[in-house]
Amino acid sequence: MFLTRSEYDRGVNTFSPEGRLFQVEYAIEAIKLGSTAVGLKTKEGVVLAVEKRITSVLLEPTSVEKIMEIDEHIGCAMSGLTADARTLVEHGRVETQNHRFSYNEPMSVESTTQALCDLALRFGEGDEESMSRPFGVSLLIAGHDESGPCLYHTDPSGTFWQCDAKAIGSGSEGADTSLQEHFNKNMTLEEAETLALSTLKQVMEEKVTSCNVDIAKVAPKYHLYTPEEVEVVIQRL
Amino acid sequence: MFLTRSEYDRGVNTFSPEGRLFQVEYAIEAIKLGSTAVGLKTKEGVVLAVEKRITSVLLEPTSVEKIMEIDEHIGCAMSGLTADARTLVEHGRVETQNHRFSYNEPMSVESTTQALCDLALRFGEGDEESMSRPFGVSLLIAGHDESGPCLYHTDPSGTFWQCDAKAIGSGSEGADTSLQEHFNKNMTLEEAETLALSTLKQVMEEKVTSCNVDIAKVAPKYHLYTPEEVEVVIQRL
Amino acid sequence: MFLTRSEYDRGVNTFSPEGRLFQVEYAIEAIKLGSTAVGLKTKEGVVLAVEKRITSVLLEPTSVEKIMEIDEHIGCAMSGLTADARTLVEHGRVETQNHRFSYNEPMSVESTTQALCDLALRFGEGDEESMSRPFGVSLLIAGHDESGPCLYHTDPSGTFWQCDAKAIGSGSEGADTSLQEHFNKNMTLEEAETLALSTLKQVMEEKVTSCNVDIAKVAPKYHLYTPEEVEVVIQRL
Amino acid sequence: MFLTRSEYDRGVNTFSPEGRLFQVEYAIEAIKLGSTAVGLKTKEGVVLAVEKRITSVLLEPTSVEKIMEIDEHIGCAMSGLTADARTLVEHGRVETQNHRFSYNEPMSVESTTQALCDLALRFGEGDEESMSRPFGVSLLIAGHDESGPCLYHTDPSGTFWQCDAKAIGSGSEGADTSLQEHFNKNMTLEEAETLALSTLKQVMEEKVTSCNVDIAKVAPKYHLYTPEEVEVVIQRL
Amino acid sequence: MFLTRSEYDRGVNTFSPEGRLFQVEYAIEAIKLGSTAVGLKTKEGVVLAVEKRITSVLLEPTSVEKIMEIDEHIGCAMSGLTADARTLVEHGRVETQNHRFSYNEPMSVESTTQALCDLALRFGEGDEESMSRPFGVSLLIAGHDESGPCLYHTDPSGTFWQCDAKAIGSGSEGADTSLQEHFNKNMTLEEAETLALSTLKQVMEEKVTSCNVDIAKVAPKYHLYTPEEVEVVIQRL
Amino acid sequence: MFLTRSEYDRGVNTFSPEGRLFQVEYAIEAIKLGSTAVGLKTKEGVVLAVEKRITSVLLEPTSVEKIMEIDEHIGCAMSGLTADARTLVEHGRVETQNHRFSYNEPMSVESTTQALCDLALRFGEGDEESMSRPFGVSLLIAGHDESGPCLYHTDPSGTFWQCDAKAIGSGSEGADTSLQEHFNKNMTLEEAETLALSTLKQVMEEKVTSCNVDIAKVAPKYHLYTPEEVEVVIQRL
Amino acid sequence: MFLTRSEYDRGVNTFSPEGRLFQVEYAIEAIKLGSTAVGLKTKEGVVLAVEKRITSVLLEPTSVEKIMEIDEHIGCAMSGLTADARTLVEHGRVETQNHRFSYNEPMSVESTTQALCDLALRFGEGDEESMSRPFGVSLLIAGHDESGPCLYHTDPSGTFWQCDAKAIGSGSEGADTSLQEHFNKNMTLEEAETLALSTLKQVMEEKVTSCNVDIAKVAPKYHLYTPEEVEVVIQRL
Repeated sequence: MFLTRSEYDRGVNTFSPEGRLFQVEYAIEAIKLGSTAVGLKTKEGVVLAVEKRITSVLLEPTSVEKIMEIDEHIGCAMSGLTADARTLVEHGRVETQNHRFSYNEPMSVESTTQALCDLALRFGEGDEESMSRPFGVSLLIAGHDESGPCLYHTDPSGTFWQCDAKAIGSGSEGADTSLQEHFNKNMTLEEAETLALSTLKQVMEEKVTSCNVDIAKVAPKYHLYTPEEVEVVIQRL
Repeated sequence: MFLTRSEYDRGVNTFSPEGRLFQVEYAIEAIKLGSTAVGLKTKEGVVLAVEKRITSVLLEPTSVEKIMEIDEHIGCAMSGLTADARTLVEHGRVETQNHRFSYNEPMSVESTTQALCDLALRFGEGDEESMSRPFGVSLLIAGHDESGPCLYHTDPSGTFWQCDAKAIGSGSEGADTSLQEHFNKNMTLEEAETLALSTLKQVMEEKVTSCNVDIAKVAPKYHLYTPEEVEVVIQRL
Repeated sequence: MFLTRSEYDRGVNTFSPEGRLFQVEYAIEAIKLGSTAVGLKTKEGVVLAVEKRITSVLLEPTSVEKIMEIDEHIGCAMSGLTADARTLVEHGRVETQNHRFSYNEPMSVESTTQALCDLALRFGEGDEESMSRPFGVSLLIAGHDESGPCLYHTDPSGTFWQCDAKAIGSGSEGADTSLQEHFNKNMTLEEAETLALSTLKQVMEEKVTSCNVDIAKVAPKYHLYTPEEVEVVIQRL
Repeated sequence: MFLTRSEYDRGVNTFSPEGRLFQVEYAIEAIKLGSTAVGLKTKEGVVLAVEKRITSVLLEPTSVEKIMEIDEHIGCAMSGLTADARTLVEHGRVETQNHRFSYNEPMSVESTTQALCDLALRFGEGDEESMSRPFGVSLLIAGHDESGPCLYHTDPSGTFWQCDAKAIGSGSEGADTSLQEHFNKNMTLEEAETLALSTLKQVMEEKVTSCNVDIAKVAPKYHLYTPEEVEVVIQRL
Repeated sequence: MFLTRSEYDRGVNTFSPEGRLFQVEYAIEAIKLGSTAVGLKTKEGVVLAVEKRITSVLLEPTSVEKIMEIDEHIGCAMSGLTADARTLVEHGRVETQNHRFSYNEPMSVESTTQALCDLALRFGEGDEESMSRPFGVSLLIAGHDESGPCLYHTDPSGTFWQCDAKAIGSGSEGADTSLQEHFNKNMTLEEAETLALSTLKQVMEEKVTSCNVDIAKVAPKYHLYTPEEVEVVIQRL
Repeated sequence: MFLTRSEYDRGVNTFSPEGRLFQVEYAIEAIKLGSTAVGLKTKEGVVLAVEKRITSVLLEPTSVEKIMEIDEHIGCAMSGLTADARTLVEHGRVETQNHRFSYNEPMSVESTTQALCDLALRFGEGDEESMSRPFGVSLLIAGHDESGPCLYHTDPSGTFWQCDAKAIGSGSEGADTSLQEHFNKNMTLEEAETLALSTLKQVMEEKVTSCNVDIAKVAPKYHLYTPEEVEVVIQRL
Repeated sequence: MFLTRSEYDRGVNTFSPEGRLFQVEYAIEAIKLGSTAVGLKTKEGVVLAVEKRITSVLLEPTSVEKIMEIDEHIGCAMSGLTADARTLVEHGRVETQNHRFSYNEPMSVESTTQALCDLALRFGEGDEESMSRPFGVSLLIAGHDESGPCLYHTDPSGTFWQCDAKAIGSGSEGADTSLQEHFNKNMTLEEAETLALSTLKQVMEEKVTSCNVDIAKVAPKYHLYTPEEVEVVIQRL
C-alpha cells in the first residue's frame, strides 16, 4: 500500500484516489516537528506564548523570533519552518500597511488572516508571489479590532478558524487537552498569561526560563514581553 | 490491475484507456470526506442546511463557514475543501457584482452557476485564474430570480444540474434516499426547514445543536439563520 | 504487451510504435460511456434525438441538456463529457455570430463544423484557447444552409464526416445497425422523428418518456421539442 | 532489446543510440495505416488518385476528402491523419496566396512543397505555428509551373523528393512495384489515369466504384473529377 | 552497464558519469547511417563529391540534393538528416547575405563555418532559432576567400576542423584511408575530381553513374556539375 | 526505507511524509564537507578565522578566499560551495551599497543578513535572481553597527541566528564544543583571536601556518589580517 | 549503491544525500578525457603549452586551436569540450572589450577570470546567456596586468584559483607531480618554456613535434609561437 501511495504524494497539487492532497498533509507534518506555541483570548486581550529551542549557550536568545508583529494591533506566533513564516508575516505587513494607506484605518484581523491564507492557498500555481510548495508553517494570529479581541489559527492548506484558545507545534496535543480543561472565557489577561505558560511548561522538556519562552499580548496593542516581564509570569507559576 | 491504473491517474488531464479522467474522479472522492449539506426547493424559496464539525469546544463555531452568500439573491452550501470553495465563491461574488454594474440587474442563478463551473473546468490549463488541479469541492447553489426559486448542484468536473432537493458530502447517500421519500414539491418553506434538519440529523454522529448546524434560506433574499432561529427549527423536530 | 503500450499512452501527443495516438483513442472511449444520440437527415430537415439519464426523481430533467443550439440554423447533439461539449458549443456560437457580424449572412454548416474541429485538433499545443487534453466528446451537428439540410459527425481527433444518419454514444453500435436497415433518403421528417425515437428505444434500458429523451429539428430553423411535442412522437411508436 | 528501445522513443526529439529519431519513424508508421494514394507525372500533367474508405452506407462519400486543392495550379493527395493533412494544406493555401499577393505570380511548386516541409520539420520546437509531435501524414503534391508538370512526395521528417510516379499509404508497397513495371515517361494523361486506377484496384479490398475513389489532375489547372468522370475512367479498366 | 547508461543518454544536455554527452554522440551515429561524401582541397580549388541513394527508378535524381550552395564562394556536402542540413544551409545563406549587405564583401569561409557551428552548439537551450536536439548532420564546407581555397569539416557537437581531404557518412572509414594513401597537396583540380570519384566508388554498393553521384567545385566560384560533366569524370576512372 | 525516501529527495521543493525538505538537508550536508570556520563576538569587535585547504604548493594561497568583505562594517566567513558563497556576497555588496545610496547611512547587519537569507529562501521559484537549487553554503556574518558588534549564522534553509560564538564546516562539531568551554563574553579581542586559532588548530589535520588559515576582524571596520599579523597570533598559541 | 546514486546525478542542479552536485563532478570528468595543457608563471611572464591530438595527416594542425587570445594581455589554454571553451572565450572577449570601451583601460586578469566563472556558475538557470548544463571545460588563464604576470585555473563549478604552475587534462596528474618537482619561482621564461614542453612530453603518447603542440606566452603581450619558434624549444629538450 505504501508504494502506491507514494506515487501520489510527490505531485504538489495532485489528488490521491481517496481525495487527499498529500503535500499539504506532509506540510502539516512539518509543523508537528516545530516548537509549541499557545494562544488564549480573554475579554481584555489575547495572549501568545511560545517555546524557543536554544540549542547552544552561545546562541543569542532574542534572535530566535517565534512571535512577530504584523501591525500594531496584530501579532502572530508560529510553529514550523521559520523562513516560511517570515514570508507570510512580511506579506501581512505589506497588506496591513496598504490598507491603512488606502482606507486610513487599521485592517480587520479577519481580513488580514484571509490575506495570509490566500497566499498560502496559491502554492504550486506558478505566479509570482506564490511558492512552488505549501508553506510549512502554522500561525496563531492574535489581534484586536472593532469587534474586540480575536484569535485565529491557520494551517498549510490555507484554511483558518477562529478560536478561544489553541496550541500548535510538537506539543499541541497535550497542550490542547490542558487548555480545554483550564480555559474559560471570563479569565483575566493575567490568568491567561499564567495558563499559557503553565501549559507550555507541561510540554517542554527543559525548565522554563526567561530565555527559552517568549510571551506577547495584543491588548489592544501588540507588546512583546521583556525578559523581566516574562520572569514575573514565571514567578506566578 | 491497480498498478496499471495508477499510471494514468496522476496526470491531471490525461484519459485512461477506459476514457476516464481520474483526477476529477479523485476530487469527487474528496467531497465524500466532507461534511454533509442538503438543499430543498419550495415554491416559497430554497432552504440550505449544513453540518459543521466543531472539533474543539474552544473553536468559535461561527468561524466555520459552510454556507456563504454570493449575492443578495444567491447563496451556497459547500462540501469538500473549504479553501477551494472560498475561491469559487469569491469568483462568483466578482461575477455577480460585475453583472449588476454592467446591466443594472441581478445576474441569473443559472449564469452564475455556469460562471463557477467554467472556472472549475479550466483546471490544469495554466492560465492565470485557473488552478493546476480540479477544485475539490461540491456546491449546492440556492437562488431566486425572474424564473422563481432554483437549486443547482455542481461537481469538480464543471458539470451542473438543476434539482428539487439534493444532498452532498459524506452522508449524501443516506440523505438523498431520505429526501426522495419525504420531499414533495408543494411543501411549505417551514416544512422544508424541518425536513432539511431531520435529514441532517439522520446522518450526523453528534446530537444536532444550534452550534453544529447552519441553516440559510433564499426567499427571495439570502438569509443565514441566527442560533436562535436554528434553535426554533430544532424544537420542531 | 500491455505494459509496453502503457508507456506511450500517457503522452498526450506521442505516437506509439504502430503510429497510434493513444490519448485520442482513449478520448473516443469516453464517448462510448456517454448517453446515446441519433441524427437523421431528410429532404425537409434534420432530426436529432438523445437519451437523457435522469439519476434521481429530484433532478430537474430540463437541466440535463444534451441538445443545444449553436445558431438559429444549426443545432447539435452530444455524447461524452458534457462540460467539454459546452466549451465547443460556446466556441461555435461565438464563431457563427462573428461570421454574421462580418459578412451579414449565416455561417455555412460545414465551416462551423470545421471551426469546432480546428479547436479540437489543437489540444496539447499550449496556446490560449486550446485544451491540454483531447476533448472527450462527439457531436452530431444538424444544420440547414444554402446547400439544404446537412448532418455532420465529429470525433475527438478533430475529424468530421457528412452523414445521412448516424448514432453516437454507448448504444451507437446497435443504433447504427438499425439506422442502416430502416433509413432511406426519401423519408418524411415525421417518419425520421419516429425512426429516431424507435432507434433510441432499442438501446435504452429504461422506458422512453417525455422526461428521459430530447428531440430537436432543424427545418430550416432549430427547434427543441416541448415535452408535449415529444409525447406526440412517443404515441406514434 | 524492446524495453531499452522504448526508453528513447517517447522523447519526441531524442536520438536513440543508433542515431534514430523514433517519433518520426512512428509517425511514418501512422501513414502505413492510411488509405492508399498514387500520383503519376506525364508531359500533359499530373494525375492523383486515392482510395476512400466508406465505412457506412449512410456516410456522404464527398465528405471524405483525400485530395485537396492548395492553389489553382497545385493539388495534393494525402495518406495518414486527415486532420494533420488539413493543417498542412491550410498552411500551403496561406503561403501560396501570400506569394501571389507579394509577387503577383503563382508560387513555384517546389517552394510550396518546401514551405510545408519546413512546418513539418519544426515539430516539438514549441513555437506558435508548429505542433508538439511530428505530422502523421504523407503528401503527394501535384503541380504545374514554369518548369512544367511536377510531382513531389513528402514524409513526416520534413524531407521531400521529386518523383515521376509514387504510391503512399497501406498499399504503397504493392502499388510502387506495379508503377515501376507499367509507368513510362511518355504516357498520355489518359493512360496515366487508367494506370493510377488499375494500381489502386490491385491494393483495394473492395470493388472500385465512383464512390470509393477520387481522381484529380493538374493539367495545368487543378481539377477534381466528378463521379461521372471517375466512372468513365473505371469503364476503361 | 547498459541499463545504467540508458539513464543518462536521454537527457539531451546531461553529462554521464564518464563526462560524456550521449545525445551528441548518438547524433554522430545518425551520420554513420548517411550517404558518403568526400571533399579534397587543391591549390586550384576544392572538390566535393557525394553518393546519392536513389531508391526507385521513378524518383527524380536532381531532387535528391546532397550538395548545396551557401554563397557564390561557398558550397557544402552533407551526410545525415537532410532536413537538418537544410536548416543549417538556410542559416548560412542568411548570414553570408547579411555580411555582404553590412560590410560590402563576401564573408570569410571560417566565419561562415563558425556561424553554423554556433547554431549547432545551442541545441537544447530553448531560444528561438536553436533546436531542442543536436543537429543530426555533418557537413564538408568548401570555400574560397582571401586566404585561398579551404575545406572545413563540422560535426553535431558544434566543433569544426580545417582539412586537406575528408570523408563523412557511412563509408567514411574506408574513404578516409583511401584519401590518406592517394591524396597529396599538389594535385591538380582534375586529379582531385578523379580521386574523389574513385574514393566514392570503393565504398558505394552500386555502380557509379551520373545519376547516383553529385560533384561540385569551388574554384573560386561554386559550381554544381551537370550530368554531362559528371559523366566526363566517370570516363576518366 | 531508503528507496522510498529517495522518491522525495530529488524534488527540490517537495515535502517528505515526515514534513522534511530533503534538498535543503542535503545542501546542509554540502557544508559538512567544507573547510572549518569560526566566529567570536567580543565587546571590542568580532573575529573570524578559517581553515584554507591548499592542495598544491604551486597554488597561490591568497587566491583561496574564505573570508570576504561585504561592506566596510561587515565581513563574512564561509563554508561549503565557494561559488555559491560568492553569489551571496555579491548580492550583499549590492544591497549594502544601495542602502548607503538611498539612505546615506550604513545598512544594519541584521538587515544585510536578512537580505542574504531572503535570496537563499527563494531557490526553486524560477524568478530571475534566485537559483534552481538551495545555496550549498553556510555563512558567519560579522558586523558592527549602531547596536555594537554582532555575529550571525545562516544556513541553506534561509534561517539565521545571532550568536556569541559559532563554528561551521567539517570540524564544526568539535570546534563548537571547544568554544562552549572556553568562550566568555568578556574576552578581549586579542583573547578571541587566540581562541579562534586554537579552536581551528584542534580540528585541522595540518599544522597551522600563515598560509593555511585566514583571520579577519570587524572592530569596527573590516580588516583581513596580513600573513605577518596571522603569524603574530600563531606565535601566541 | 550505484542505482541510488544514479537517481541524483541526472538532475543538473540537485544535491545528493552527501551534499554533492553530480553533474558538475561529471563535467569535471569530461576534462579528464581532454588533451593535456600546462601553464607556468615566471617573473618575466607566463607560458602556456598544450598537446594537440591530430587524428589524421589530412587535418590542418592550425585549425585545432587549444590556446586562444582573450585580449592582448590575456590568453588561455583549454582542456575538455572545445565548443564550450569557445563560448567562454567569446564571452571573455566581449567583456574585456566592453571594459576597454567603458573605462579606457585593460580589464584586470582576475576580473576577466571572474566574469568567465560567473557565466559557468549560472548553468541550469534558464536565463538567456547561460547553458542548461555545466560547461565541460577547464581553462588555464594567463595574463599580465598592473599587478604583474598571473595564472588562473578555472573548473566547471565556476571556482577559480591563482597558481604558480598547473596542468589540466588527461595527463594532469603526472604533469602536476613533475611541475611540483622542477618548477621554482625564479625560473627564466626560457627555462619555463623548456619545462612546459618536457612536462608535456612525459604525458604524451606521441613524439613531440611542432605540429602536435602549441606554445604561447603573455610577456606582457599574448603571443602564439610559430612552428619555427616551437621547433626552437623542442631543440632545447
